Order: sequence, then structure tokens, then C-alpha cells
Amino acid sequence: MTVPSDKLSPAQFLQHQLQEVITLLDKQQLETSLVQRGPATNHELIEAVLHKQHKTRLQDKFAQLHPADIAYILESLPLDQREIAWDAIKSELDGQVLLEVSDAVRQTLISGMEAEELATVASNLDTDEIADLAADLPKRAMLKILRSLNSKERLHLNTILAYQENQVGSRMDFGMITIRDDLNLKAIKAYIRKLGKLPSNTDKLFVVDQDNRVKGILPLQRLLTHSPFKHVSDVMVTDFVMFQVDQEISEASRAFERYDLISAPVVDSNGELQGRLCVDIILDFIRDKSDEDILTQAGVGEEEDLFSSVWKSARNRWSWLIINIITAFASTRIIGLFEDIILQLVSLASLMPIVAAMGGNTGNQTSMLIIRSLALGQISSSNVHRLIKKELTLAVLNGIFIGFIMGFLGFLLYRDWALSAVMAIAMFINLMVAVVVGLGIPLFRHKFGKDPAVGASVMLTAITDSMGFFIVLMLASLFLIK
Amino acid sequence: MTVPSDKLSPAQFLQHQLQEVITLLDKQQLETSLVQRGPATNHELIEAVLHKQHKTRLQDKFAQLHPADIAYILESLPLDQREIAWDAIKSELDGQVLLEVSDAVRQTLISGMEAEELATVASNLDTDEIADLAADLPKRAMLKILRSLNSKERLHLNTILAYQENQVGSRMDFGMITIRDDLNLKAIKAYIRKLGKLPSNTDKLFVVDQDNRVKGILPLQRLLTHSPFKHVSDVMVTDFVMFQVDQEISEASRAFERYDLISAPVVDSNGELQGRLCVDIILDFIRDKSDEDILTQAGVGEEEDLFSSVWKSARNRWSWLIINIITAFASTRIIGLFEDIILQLVSLASLMPIVAAMGGNTGNQTSMLIIRSLALGQISSSNVHRLIKKELTLAVLNGIFIGFIMGFLGFLLYRDWALSAVMAIAMFINLMVAVVVGLGIPLFRHKFGKDPAVGASVMLTAITDSMGFFIVLMLASLFLIK
Repeated sequence: MTVPSDKLSPAQFLQHQLQEVITLLDKQQLETSLVQRGPATNHELIEAVLHKQHKTRLQDKFAQLHPADIAYILESLPLDQREIAWDAIKSELDGQVLLEVSDAVRQTLISGMEAEELATVASNLDTDEIADLAADLPKRAMLKILRSLNSKERLHLNTILAYQENQVGSRMDFGMITIRDDLNLKAIKAYIRKLGKLPSNTDKLFVVDQDNRVKGILPLQRLLTHSPFKHVSDVMVTDFVMFQVDQEISEASRAFERYDLISAPVVDSNGELQGRLCVDIILDFIRDKSDEDILTQAGVGEEEDLFSSVWKSARNRWSWLIINIITAFASTRIIGLFEDIILQLVSLASLMPIVAAMGGNTGNQTSMLIIRSLALGQISSSNVHRLIKKELTLAVLNGIFIGFIMGFLGFLLYRDWALSAVMAIAMFINLMVAVVVGLGIPLFRHKFGKDPAVGASVMLTAITDSMGFFIVLMLASLFLIK
Repeated sequence: MTVPSDKLSPAQFLQHQLQEVITLLDKQQLETSLVQRGPATNHELIEAVLHKQHKTRLQDKFAQLHPADIAYILESLPLDQREIAWDAIKSELDGQVLLEVSDAVRQTLISGMEAEELATVASNLDTDEIADLAADLPKRAMLKILRSLNSKERLHLNTILAYQENQVGSRMDFGMITIRDDLNLKAIKAYIRKLGKLPSNTDKLFVVDQDNRVKGILPLQRLLTHSPFKHVSDVMVTDFVMFQVDQEISEASRAFERYDLISAPVVDSNGELQGRLCVDIILDFIRDKSDEDILTQAGVGEEEDLFSSVWKSARNRWSWLIINIITAFASTRIIGLFEDIILQLVSLASLMPIVAAMGGNTGNQTSMLIIRSLALGQISSSNVHRLIKKELTLAVLNGIFIGFIMGFLGFLLYRDWALSAVMAIAMFINLMVAVVVGLGIPLFRHKFGKDPAVGASVMLTAITDSMGFFIVLMLASLFLIK
């Protein structure tokens, strides 16, 4: 298998592989078009041969690559070329590649496949991998796959599918090796030799009793460094981290970071071993979650295939834009109500958007810090009051500072003391509002068991905008208009 | 050591530990105040004993906890209690705890320590761990530490410190085990037995030649499953991933995800082995990066200690707010230039902020997708044109759709066909501007080797706001004002 060597960095390596595939694809497409266009001439035969040659070279190319690299290449290819490339990948690799591509690209690949093909693909996968694909597979293919599994595999598959995406149970695999504690290390080594192969991420063996309850773990490290005549019970570690099937995966991922885990047992409520959770899954989870957070923040609903149809992308983004235009209309209605004030003091039209925007900015700072601290579990009932006090004090300082700048710049522009004072006070009040809202939305959502991040920024902006306009116009009508 | 069992989830476990520590701290503080206040009575002696008892219980508590959990507890404590807790932690653990706390909290802990104390703390750490702390240590402590190291350790430390934070070299450790390929597996096993302990994250041994160049890797898996009489050269893997010391850590982290690595060799430009990179460091890197991205996006300069002084937090957030108020003033100056237009058609005051805001929203969607695709390495010279074409087509669709909604809602409010048409067209144009800017900023920054994400949203908002105001007011002055 070709992997990044010391000559090329991982990213250069990928770019290089992508370029080679594109060159092969371009040649093949050129010839395909020649063959299809040309009448039956002597050339045709030669071209057909050439075409076949390039296809074989493409197949050889893919056969050398890691499934994750093939996935990267497929994601970087436009739809027509992607289809040709997908055909050139050996069917044994198809399953691994489907696991590695993004959801959006997986759908484009699966949509062109028959149920039988998909069942064959699945036969090369472990049950936990089939479970990963299950949501994207057509029903007919899924039935075929279920029928081809033995009863243990079917049980495993159903176990995983029974859990929600955010639960540990949905991300576990069944690659754990279990041993009894009354054997000596020599026997364990002989057992492993007989197995012939260890699943990836095996850094420890799980020691279970007769009821399949986990009593301890035996790190390979200890297996290798202790005398072969010692018993597992003497060598095993008994203070180890394990997870419940129904725990949140985000919580488990924090535990992996905290305790530097490679793999850990997953048990049910009776303490019986159900599977294991591995660090590669945790890495993928953290990356997906962070990408998702950033995209959701920007209002891109779900992961987009870079080359999906324009219509699909448009639908993905419109719901966000519609929400935003409606909230924007709602908050600017405040301005509509005060049109006579603006006619009397037109400088308000250019000054009030500043007050509104700064409210959004400070509120966002507060809410982001709170959302992150909630995610880290750093906020508890014992310290939330101190935190609120600190943010409110900060808001007063911010309000004075930014309010002063607002008043000063306003005076520079309009040379009107009263106007400047009103703008400074309006800024102060709106920043206080912003911090209260920026604290309140995530804390309340969290208190009621909801994701504190969802919708925080839209709601915040809607409130700080309308309050910003309202405060400025109200103060102006009270103090500036005769 | 106490770790999350199957009774408590990791987060519940942490909350529980924190609560216990706080209870102990509260008792101790209460007694401290009694002892300090009270005159010399008979009670004093009893109280002093009680105080000591609680301190011992606190020490015992911390001695049972994982350094990462202690770090979590320290981060969740307000400054005064944090200091008392820090004193109660055994000095052997201090180093590990300092490594686990956030930068901001680390500074509060280190600031209260003498150079000698810090040197003692460092003596319990590996050189790569000392390097992690180096930036936060006072110069005097660092000199003391350097003097206490042997020449090999000093070389290691200097090697790591020579690389920038974003390079692989700065994150490597020296825990690799190297072997020669002419030995058989039995000899390797004997060697490991003699070592007595394997560094954490050891999933493979590195096979080097006499010049310390990496020829292959020997996964522990193979060591355990192959015959002890086979030679390393027959069993080792020769297509393996390795990294250059000066490669970007973000690139290496993508490779860890892609190839499911636990550890990998790091070599210099001559191919000589320098160290190894492990998955626990990669996990921390990905988490830190994602937290940083989100906080930077919101204008929180750097990680904040939840309980740091208000002044410190204020300074951390002000630079962002100042940048924003200045750009807000700049873009609203456009409105100032057109005040006579607004006086003639005051409805523009409430309609134009909508056009400006929607430009920001759509531009943000585009730029976030581009920034993410650039980070994933999915954008290359071969597909960038297709991508630009797609986003522009999408912008036309968005422009028509959102422009139509704008015109429709505008008509509902003001029953003015001409005004509605102008607002719809202004929206269309501003969305086109937004997408061009949203594409342009990250692509250009990337082209010139800069982080595409930095400052993208401020610049984008500044441009879409001012263009939004300008387009509305310009069109209005051309078509609506007689």
C-alpha cells in the first residue's frame, strides 16, 4: 500500500495521488469520447485497447491506495469523473471507502448501486461498520444484508442500531478480546498466537468473569513485561475507565482525552460487557462535531458535497436564510414605528445600526464562552452565580468603555453633545441587554436539557438588533426631540 | 486511583469529585477563619487539629485522583479556593497537573511558585513535557531546570523548543523504542521484558538501521502473533506513515484520522529518527484547535480562565470590540452621506439594514464552506474553477429567491411597487457581492500562505454592510427620488 513517506507530506501525497487519478481519468474520458464518436475505422480497435489499458492503470492505482485516500480523491472529483473512478475501485475495497467518505458523497455513490451489489459490499465489513452505513442504505439492500448475517452478527447489528447516534452504544465495535483471570500470561500469549491477528486499536485485553462482567483489564504492555508464569489476576489493572452503552458519546470523548485512552470496555446496566469504544472513532467524532458546529454556526444545514447539484446546496442553505430574513424584518419593524423620529433627526439612521451590531458582538462573546464552558462541564450549580456576577461586571466595564467610544465618535461626526450622550447611554444599555441574553439563552437551554449552542446566535442577534434600535429611538424621542 | 466506574458517567464522576473537594475546602476555610479570629481559648487547639484533619483529607482526596481530573477541579474553583487546593496536591503530581490545566489557569498556578519549587516539579517530568510548560515558566526557573538536565535531555529539550508550535517537531516525544532488523522476535521480547515498562501509546516498535534511519515498524500485534524465531526483517511493516519534524501539525492530525494511527515516527530531512508523535497529543490538538476556532470567531482572543479577574477578561475582549466598532462606524458612514435621500424616503432606514444583514449571512455561508474545504485539502487548482462556478450559480439562485422575498415583504409593508423592486434588486446585487467576497477572502489568503479563517468574518461583514447600504441608497437616489 502507498502511504505518505518522508519525501512527501501527507497533504502533498494526497494532492499527488489526486493529480495522477485525474490525469488517468482525463485520458480515459478523451478516448471514450473518441470511441463513441468515431465510425468503425481501424483506429477503433487501438483506441478500445488504449481505453482498457487506462482503466486497468486506474484500477491498479486505486488498489495501492488506502481506503481513506480513495475517499478523499472521490470527494475531490466532480460527479461525472467520480462515477468513472468509483467503477474502477475493486469491490473488496468499496465498503471501506463508503465508510470513509462524507455522508453527502456516500449518497451519490450508493444511489448508483443495486441492492445485490451493496449486499456483496457489506459482506466484507464488520457488523459495526455495516451499522455505520445502515442509515444510507436502501431498505431492500438492508434486508438482503440482514439475511446474509449469522445470528450473532445480526444480534450485534441490532444492538448497535438500537442506540441513538449520540450514545456510546451506537459507536462501539465488537473487536474486544476477553480473557479469564485464572490463566497465566503464557496461556494468554498462546491464545493470541492462535488467534493469529489482533483487531486494530487493541492495547488491552478485557478480563471478564463467567457472567461476562468486566473485572479488570490487561494492557498488552503488562503482558509483554511481566513474567509468563504470573496469573492474569496478579497483573491485571482494576481501576480502569469503562462506559455505559447509553452514555453520551461527547462525554466519552472527553474521557478519552482526559485519560489518554486507546480502547475501553462498554457495558450495559447490569455491568455485562457489550463491546468496546476505540480512539479512532473518538477522533472522527470530535472532528465531525467541530466541523458541524462551525457550519451550523454559519447556517449551512448539513455537510455539503462540494460538487453536489446547485439545487441541493441551495435547499440546504435556504432554511437558514429564510429564518434570518424574517428575524431581520421583525427587528427592523421597530425602526418603522419610529419613522417620524428619524425624519426629525436623520443622523439616527446611521448611528443606530452601530449600537445594534455591537450588542450582537458582545452578546456573542459571552454566549460562546458559556457554551464552551458548558461543553467542558466547567459550569455547575456551585459556581454559576460567581460566573454570572463576573460576566455582568464585565458587561458594565464593556458598556462604559464602548459607550464612551460611541459617544466620542458620534460627537466627532455630528458635534452634538446631547446626541452623543444619548448614543453612549443607548450603547451601555444595549450591551447590558446583550450580556444578559448571551448568558441566559445557553444557560436556560442547558437547564432544560437542550443543546445550548443551537439557535443561540440567531436569537441573540434578533434580540440585540431590535433592542438596539428600540433603545436608541426611544431615548431619542424622550430627550432629543422637542 | 479513582476513575469513572460503571456507576457514574465520566461527567457525573467529575461533578461528584468537585463537590467533595468543595465541601472539604469550605470546612477548612470556615475553621481557618475561626482560628484566625478567635482569641487564645481552649477551643483553639481543637480547631487547629480539626483544620489539619481536613487538610489531610483533602490531600488524600487529590492523591487518589488522575492529574487530568485534578486539573478539571482546579479550573472549576474560584481563585481563593484554587490556591488552597493547589497547596494540598502532592508535589510529585504538580507537574502532571500543570500539563493538564488550560494556559490561563496554569499562569495563575505558576505565578505563586518559587523557581526552586518549579525546578523540583520539572524533575518529575519528561523532556517533552517540560517543553510544553517552557513558555509559561519564568526565566530563572527555566535556567535552574536546564542545569538539572543531563546532556541528552538538554539536547531533546532544545530540539523540541527549536520548532514552532504548529510544527510536528514541537509536539513529539522521545518515548519510542527502537530495534534492529537482524534480531528475532524472541530477542525483542526479552529486550522488552528487560525494559520492564513500555511508554504509553506504544503500539509499535521502530526498526532503524545503523544511521538511525527508520526502515520499518514492528506492531506489537505482529510481535505477539508471529513465531518467536522469525526475524524482525521478515515480520516488520515497510509501508508505514512517518512525519517530518517541520511538517504542519494540522496536516499530521489529518493523517492520524485518515490512517487510524496510534503513534508514528518523526524524522528530520536526512530521514533520521527524531522522535514520535502520538494520538493523545493529536486529540488534544484537534480539541484545542476547534475550541480556538469557535472562540476566535466570536472575538474572544484567547482561552479565558472562567474565574480570572474581570480586568483580564475585559482586555482580552476589547481589541475585538474596538475593531468592530470602527468597522461599524466606517460602514455606516455611507448612510451619513445619503441622509437627504433618507429624509425623502424614510422607509429606507428600516429596509436597508435587512439587505446589509442578509449579505453578511450568505457571504458567511460561502466563506465557511470554503474555509472548511481548504482545511480538508479538498480544494486544488484542478477543481477551484468548478467550485467558483457552482457558488456563483448558487448566488444567482439565492439572489433571485431572497430578493423576491425582500420585495414581497417590502411591498406588504409599504405598498409601493417601485420601492419593492429597488429593494429586491439591491438584495440580489448585495448577495452577489457577498458571495464574491466570501469566496475571495479565504481563497486569496490561502493562496498567499495565510490562515484563510483569520479575520474573514469581520472583513466580510464590513464589506457586505457598507455595500448593502450603498447599493440600496444609490439605487433609491437613481430611481425613487425625483
